[in-house]
Amino acid sequence: MPRYKITIEYDGSQMVGWQRQKEPNSVQQYLEEAIYNFSKENVVVHGCGRTDARVHAYAHVSHFDLDQTYPIITVINALNYYLRIAKIVVLEAEIVDDDFHARFKAKARSYQYLVINRHSPLILEKNRAWHIISPLDEHKMQEGANFLIGKHDFSSFRAKSCQAKSPLRTLEQIKISRDNEKVSFFLKAPSFLHHMVRNIVGTLVYVGNGKLQPDDVKDILEAKNRAAAGPTAPAAGLYFLTADY
Amino acid sequence: MPRYKITIEYDGSQMVGWQRQKEPNSVQQYLEEAIYNFSKENVVVHGCGRTDARVHAYAHVSHFDLDQTYPIITVINALNYYLRIAKIVVLEAEIVDDDFHARFKAKARSYQYLVINRHSPLILEKNRAWHIISPLDEHKMQEGANFLIGKHDFSSFRAKSCQAKSPLRTLEQIKISRDNEKVSFFLKAPSFLHHMVRNIVGTLVYVGNGKLQPDDVKDILEAKNRAAAGPTAPAAGLYFLTADY
Repeated sequence: MPRYKITIEYDGSQMVGWQRQKEPNSVQQYLEEAIYNFSKENVVVHGCGRTDARVHAYAHVSHFDLDQTYPIITVINALNYYLRIAKIVVLEAEIVDDDFHARFKAKARSYQYLVINRHSPLILEKNRAWHIISPLDEHKMQEGANFLIGKHDFSSFRAKSCQAKSPLRTLEQIKISRDNEKVSFFLKAPSFLHHMVRNIVGTLVYVGNGKLQPDDVKDILEAKNRAAAGPTAPAAGLYFLTADY
Repeated sequence: MPRYKITIEYDGSQMVGWQRQKEPNSVQQYLEEAIYNFSKENVVVHGCGRTDARVHAYAHVSHFDLDQTYPIITVINALNYYLRIAKIVVLEAEIVDDDFHARFKAKARSYQYLVINRHSPLILEKNRAWHIISPLDEHKMQEGANFLIGKHDFSSFRAKSCQAKSPLRTLEQIKISRDNEKVSFFLKAPSFLHHMVRNIVGTLVYVGNGKLQPDDVKDILEAKNRAAAGPTAPAAGLYFLTADY
């Protein structure tokens, strides 16, 4: 029974998130229906991680099992044919060992968060970025972000609804860069808590606009209290980048 | 009678191009109507250049005259309020001397053309790039492109419908770069012929995929014949970048 690993790109702006739910338009449902339409097999697709409604992905990884073995190019082209009704595309596919698991075998996940920092409303980046008018100091944001690198209790940056057993996570990298009006946050960790990236970005934006000082990030982390941190950044600016195995 | 210079961004994917025509949804018409709604003055907006249907712009420049003098921030915010029905936004505005002219005083114009070079259909870059499946060699494309730098008769890259008196143009820069699947063309010249950027890109793609050799670009240029060159690249991948004064 071959196991297929697929890497997909999606535009989350009109979707309810990765996970199948009562409402239609989840990435998981679109994938499972496309796999059924192609193979006539009912499968569960296991993702490397859930993304919230309106979050995008450049290279999200998932896996599923089929009874039949198909050539890889057939899997890619057939799924993309049935996925043309959704804003999802399969970039790569491969047959992997039975012990591969998109979620449990992922060693690291990385995200990008995009802010457009300018006066005027967004056009080309609409639904693809967080529009922030007040000037942001990316150097101060990086200074604050550096307190978060390493293994910490991230309770201050964890959504109420987070189902993880432990609030301990290891943030391997957080890098903030600016290209004119585009301010980009790159984060990498073995795994993240629910809303962790968006809560970190929301807090760092408070550092960038001067509401907080870089040193305050240390205190916020140590408070282990969601109320101590800044707001949750909007979903539209968040991109799942890759999972490493 | 103050003259206003404005810099705008637009998503051309659902527009008929810069110039006002019988069909609605031109950039010029949207701007002129927004200016009327704001000032109750009927004006003609003069652009630094026309763009075709579905072409985008990051910083297109135009000008218009009003009887009244308004604070710049009022002009920007009022126009953006009325432009919210369109995929156009005013980024900057300023009051300029009477001898300023968006078209006739522009010393240089620059464009970007974006190709996504991969097997799978586009999602995040849909309507924003040319999707090309066959592998492109960006070094060979640059080698071919270098024959075009300087002052030449660009008849081979000129649309039939081009209204310019002379086919002579001076291409100051053409630079091709790759970032994974993204292949980007940057072109700068005092002015361009109609479809010149798209015809150059369409020809260079033939060099990139091996249908032509880099040296062939020299022969195509010297042929001064549109039939000698490659196809016109689709509008969706083209971005007007800036005009210099």
